[in-house]
Parts: sequence; C-alpha cells; structure tokens
Amino acid sequence: MALIVQKYGGTSVGSTDRIKNVANRIAKFKAAGHDVVVVVSAMSGETNRLVALAEAMQEYPDPREMDVILSTGEQVTIGLLSMALKNIGLDAKSYTGWQVAVKTDTSHTKARIDSIDADHIHADLKEGRVIVVAGFQGVDENNDITTLGRGGSDTSAVALAAALKADECQIYTDVDGVYTTDPRVVPEARRLKTISFEEMLELASLGSKVLQIRSVEFAGKYKVRLRVLSSLQEGGDGTLITFEEDEDMEKAAVAGIAFDKNQARINVRGVPDKPGIAYQILGAVADANIEVDMIIQNVGDEGTTDFSFTVPRGDYQRTLSILNEVQKNIGAATVDGDNTVCKVSIVGVGMRSHVGVASTMFRTLAEEGINIQMISTSEIKVSVLIDEKYLELATRVLHSAFGLDDPEKVAQA
Amino acid sequence: MALIVQKYGGTSVGSTDRIKNVANRIAKFKAAGHDVVVVVSAMSGETNRLVALAEAMQEYPDPREMDVILSTGEQVTIGLLSMALKNIGLDAKSYTGWQVAVKTDTSHTKARIDSIDADHIHADLKEGRVIVVAGFQGVDENNDITTLGRGGSDTSAVALAAALKADECQIYTDVDGVYTTDPRVVPEARRLKTISFEEMLELASLGSKVLQIRSVEFAGKYKVRLRVLSSLQEGGDGTLITFEEDEDMEKAAVAGIAFDKNQARINVRGVPDKPGIAYQILGAVADANIEVDMIIQNVGDEGTTDFSFTVPRGDYQRTLSILNEVQKNIGAATVDGDNTVCKVSIVGVGMRSHVGVASTMFRTLAEEGINIQMISTSEIKVSVLIDEKYLELATRVLHSAFGLDDPEKVAQA
Repeated sequence: MALIVQKYGGTSVGSTDRIKNVANRIAKFKAAGHDVVVVVSAMSGETNRLVALAEAMQEYPDPREMDVILSTGEQVTIGLLSMALKNIGLDAKSYTGWQVAVKTDTSHTKARIDSIDADHIHADLKEGRVIVVAGFQGVDENNDITTLGRGGSDTSAVALAAALKADECQIYTDVDGVYTTDPRVVPEARRLKTISFEEMLELASLGSKVLQIRSVEFAGKYKVRLRVLSSLQEGGDGTLITFEEDEDMEKAAVAGIAFDKNQARINVRGVPDKPGIAYQILGAVADANIEVDMIIQNVGDEGTTDFSFTVPRGDYQRTLSILNEVQKNIGAATVDGDNTVCKVSIVGVGMRSHVGVASTMFRTLAEEGINIQMISTSEIKVSVLIDEKYLELATRVLHSAFGLDDPEKVAQA
Repeated sequence: MALIVQKYGGTSVGSTDRIKNVANRIAKFKAAGHDVVVVVSAMSGETNRLVALAEAMQEYPDPREMDVILSTGEQVTIGLLSMALKNIGLDAKSYTGWQVAVKTDTSHTKARIDSIDADHIHADLKEGRVIVVAGFQGVDENNDITTLGRGGSDTSAVALAAALKADECQIYTDVDGVYTTDPRVVPEARRLKTISFEEMLELASLGSKVLQIRSVEFAGKYKVRLRVLSSLQEGGDGTLITFEEDEDMEKAAVAGIAFDKNQARINVRGVPDKPGIAYQILGAVADANIEVDMIIQNVGDEGTTDFSFTVPRGDYQRTLSILNEVQKNIGAATVDGDNTVCKVSIVGVGMRSHVGVASTMFRTLAEEGINIQMISTSEIKVSVLIDEKYLELATRVLHSAFGLDDPEKVAQA
C-alpha cells in the first residue's frame, strides 16, 4: 500500500488506444492496493496545433492568452483518461491545474510553482478514486491560467508528489530508464538501476532528454523518490534516482557519458588584459539573450589575453556579428569561431573518491588523436569540447575506458 | 456610449480568418465609443471532434468529464479572439466560465445558470478592455466545470447582459434577422424589424432555429434588449426583440408563420371514456422519454373516446409499439398513426386585438383543399396539423392571407 504519482507524457497518451493502455496500467497498480495520482500531458501533436492557431492570430502571441489556449490540451487528456478508467470499472476524477489548486507565479508560458493544495486530492483518494491531474498548468494570484513551459508536466508530477508526500513519483516515457550513454551511439550502453540525484541533474542539463531539469531540481529540493520507466513495455524497474550517497566504494567512478552537438565556439584573441574585459564581451552577448555555456580565458602574449566561449549553434552567426561590433571598443586583435564542435561529458559522484578520472579521460582521447579544444569541470563532471566528427568515437572509447561496457562494473546494473 | 454584449456562434468563429473578421467588427463598436463584452462558441466542428474522442473512451461518456472536455472548445476561441483583438491594437482579456464566475447548478451537460459575478468584468471594462467570455460553460458549487447544453452560448450571452445591465445583447448568426417565415419556402418572406418577446418565444419553440429558446426565456425574465444580426454581412439592423406591447393597433395580426416537419400522429380509437385514460396512455409514452407535442381528445360513440397526439418522427415506431402493449390494458379498439404529417403555426400578439384570425386561417386552408387533422391554440398562436405534402402550399397561402407578402403591412418592416 503506497501512494504513487505517475506521469505520462504526450506520446503515452497520443491516441485513444494509448490512453486506454495507460488506464489498464493504472488498474494494475490499483489492484495491487496502491493509491494512484496520475499527471498527464496533452496528446502528442495537440500543443503544436494550438500554437499554430495562436500564431495565425498574432506574430508574438499574448502570453496570458497563450496559456488560456495551451492549457486546454491537458484538460482534454484528463477528461479522456478519467472516462477510460471509469470504463474499466475504476472510480476516477479529473483535476485541472486551478481545480487542484496548483498556485504559480505570474510568469505566463514559463511559470514556477509556489504551492499546491493537496486537501481535495487527499479527500478523493480516501474515497478510493484514481486522481487524474492536468500537468504543465497552474493558476496565479489573479486567477489567471499559467503554464510551466515545455516539459513542465514532469515538474507538475514531482511537485504533486512532494505536496502529497507520495512514496514514489514515476515518470513514464518512451525509454525504459537512464542509460550510461545514448544506445544509438554506443550499442553497449546499459540501463542504470539507480543514479544519484546530482548525476541525474548533470545528465539532464548536459542534453540527456529523459527528464526535464527543473523536475530533477524539484525532486532534489523536496527529496522526492523519482523513477523513470517505459510506458511502452511492461514490468521493467526503470531507473531510480536516489538521494543517498552510495556506500559501495567499488562503484564505478563514472555513471554515464553525455554529449551535446548544439555547441559553437567563439574566440576573441589578443584582448588587452584589463579588468572588465570579460564583462564587455559576455555582457553584449547576454543582452542579446544568447546563452553562454563553456567559458575559458587564457593569458596571451605581451599583456593580452585570449577569450573563448560556446553558444548554441543557432546563435553562432548572431554572436559573431555582435562581437565584430564589440571588437573595436575593446581593441581585440581577431574574432573567429567554429560551429562544427561538440561537447562530451563524463558524469559520476564516484569522481569524488576516485583520483585520476580527468586524466584517464584526457589520455583516452589523446590515444585516439582527438584534440581537446576546451575543458570545463565540476565536482562530479568533466566536459571537453572537441571536433564534432569525433563525437561517436570519443563517446565509445570513454564508455569502454570507464568500464561502462562491462555489466559487472556498471553501477548496480 | 452603450454597453453591448455580442455573441458569435461556431460558424462566425469557424476559422482563424473569421475570428479576425469578428475582431474587426468589434473594433468598429469600440471606435464608436461603446463598451463591448463578447461571448463566443467553440470553432465549428470542434465540439463534434471532442465528442468523438469522448465516445471512443466510453459508450456513455461520464457527464462530469464530458464537461471538462467540451469546455475546452470555447476556451480556445476566447484566447484566439483576444489575440486577434490585441493584434489590431485593442486591449482585450479573456474569461473562462469559472473565471467570470458563471455559477450554475450541478446538472452536467445541461446546467442552468444560478448567478453571474459581474464585478471583475466591470473593473476590466473601466480599464477600456474588450472582454471575451467563453459561452456555454460555468462552474458549480463543487468547483466542477459545467456546460449549458447545445446552443447554450446564446443563454450565456443573455445572462451576462442581464448581470452587467447591458444596453443591448446582440446575437450574431448566419441569418440577418427573424423572418415572417422561411425564405426558402416563401420567397416573399420579409425580415421583421421588431418582434415581441412572446412571439419570439413561440417561434423559437415552433422550430425556428434562430435563437435558443432558453436564451429567449432568460431575456424575457430579465428584460434584456435582444437583437439578432448577421455576422456575415455589414450594416444590417437585424431584428430587435421588444418587451413593449405594440401601441400601433394597425400592426399586422400575425407576425410570422412557423412550420415543423418533425411530427408524427398517433391515434388511439375507441377507448372507454373513464377518468385516468389520458394518463394511462401518455404516462407510458412519457416513461419512455418520448416528448408529446399536440394532444386532442374527442368524444366518440357510445361511451368511448378517440385520443390523438403527436411525437417526434424518430420516436414514431417506438410509440406505436408501446401503445400496442397499452391497448390491451385500456381496452382500446385500434391504435394507428401517420408519420407523413407536419405542423404549421401562425404567431402574433396582434391576435389578442384582432378577431377572426383563426377562422381566416381555417378558411384559407379550406380554399386550397387542405384538410386540418388537429388544431392547438394559445393566446398568440394557432397551430394546425396537416399532410406534409401541403407544407409549402399552406405556408405560402397563409403568408399571403395575413398580408405578410406586403411590405406596407409587415410589422414596422
């Protein structure tokens, strides 16, 4: 007897047949004696359809009205899933965001959850009902409908699990868990039975699409037991995100390898080495709303410095244009760049207790003749920027070098 | 400077281009200095799409969840229209039913409005905003979403006009007003500039599809000045529904002629003439949820009576089956019927002051050799049941006999 929050994304509820499948899966948990609260997304394709309608009205649709429109997607799904549950004999009841109520700030299209009132849901659970909640949406202090931004249904589920003090929050998706790396690149990639919260956070922010990063942060803040599972296959255990530091010192140093092709490098060379230079360069980029990822500053010759950073590829040309302007003001020698680079990262809490992880990474890449252009590190991760043509090779050799090919060595797998 | 409530139906907002047209029409009223509150339906086709999804889940979809799903149709339209208004420089704000709040009883899929809170809308109007309200929906005492049933958006508009004490409620539709009869049957049919509330009520319930009958009742109860206009053409005055008895005694006795093909006659002959017979016959029909329209009981021969009534054609065979059962119990001689009949009605408050209206009707039909099978009357209407093959002929000759062909005679036209 546990209280379980389950979240099903747009693909899992993408047709009337798939919604019926979800109902059947929920019925098994009910039959096992569990209380179930379900969070659902809009049926796949529906959000895009609504966005297209809005964009036919206004080039930049009004955010408040956009949320009024977008929130209908999940509202349709909660009604349909409740009907499907009733159709197989379960008592079910739907809740929109405002009915719960999921209170958010007023930032339309990217609101943050302030509080959740769990009283009504607890009362309905006591009556034996399955509760079906619209993900992605809430209501602000003005009684206006808000949405949490793309992927926000994960956050809704975790926040609900926290408010309800649920025993587990299960995120059903089209993969059966978190892998040591992308199986399409490394066929030897293995599913992790557990991963630490910090590792998951690094993997999520490094471009792994399994979980939305805000939902992982939320789980960390409220210590929600979070599990990623497949909605397509039956009976798997998925991957559990844990909060306990692993006591097993034999655990592999590296839990997984992430990569990100959406990187472009910008170099500003021969800048006079004066205070405020970094701000002059990056301030102009930030003002243009361009997100900067890796940043490196090196001492150059004769009182000058070289400055490099990466931006999303879509912002590459715009960043170059901005810096060609800035170049005159700061007296830089040259501005150039490269938009055929990628970032490969090794992630693992084991790095704290295992020395030489970074040097193993560098040596492994050097042995394959792969040149490292930039390096950035945190306590549990090392990222390198390399030529994108080496992405698959680098990921494969690192996967092997850190023992992730070996079923015996992969963390608790 | 007036406060106007405008209602646009599904066809008027059936595409993004049509929604833009509605926005342009509203802009003209704003430019003339009026305050405007707009009530909209779901885009045409949307409600059917949602019903089909629901019926794929459950043969008889749960009414509470049906309302959760159906209410999204209007919610999308209010967002889109608000965006279209903002796009042409007007300040606009959308309201769902619960945001207003339109409080209803708990009868899902056919709820009735209990009260409307006009405070928020008044405050927004003071700020110069156009208010866009989702028709057809409300919220009950449990915070559950309710809908008012098909055509309920007309009722939403009239109820809002009453709550806001609006100067006029304008119902935009695909016809440009109320006609003396259907122009497809009588090309000489003329648009009425005004029609009394009672006449409109009779015409609405007699099968004229212009206005939903509950909205007319609501307008009568709260004395809302109601006008029917075309959303397709510019500049017409439509038809105004008035509450003042017309002081002009020269006004035509008959305002309009309605007809209804959805009629089938049932005859129960040779019934012993005892108290309770009518109940035994009609009780069985009512128990089967079949709506009875005209009813006639005639004295027959030797202590027996003949009993006739009409039902919708779709219920004809079922009604005959039920009465074949009842026949034995009540000792009726025969049960038969005819499903090739129709009802033609003349309607007009002028009947009160003009004698001989009914006899003019009967004489006119007799001169054309049209046999009258049943007659039913109210203070301002006379309905006759005739063979359906005479429907067009009867309507044309009555239209002419009551001077409705003549532009000079048609009420204030």
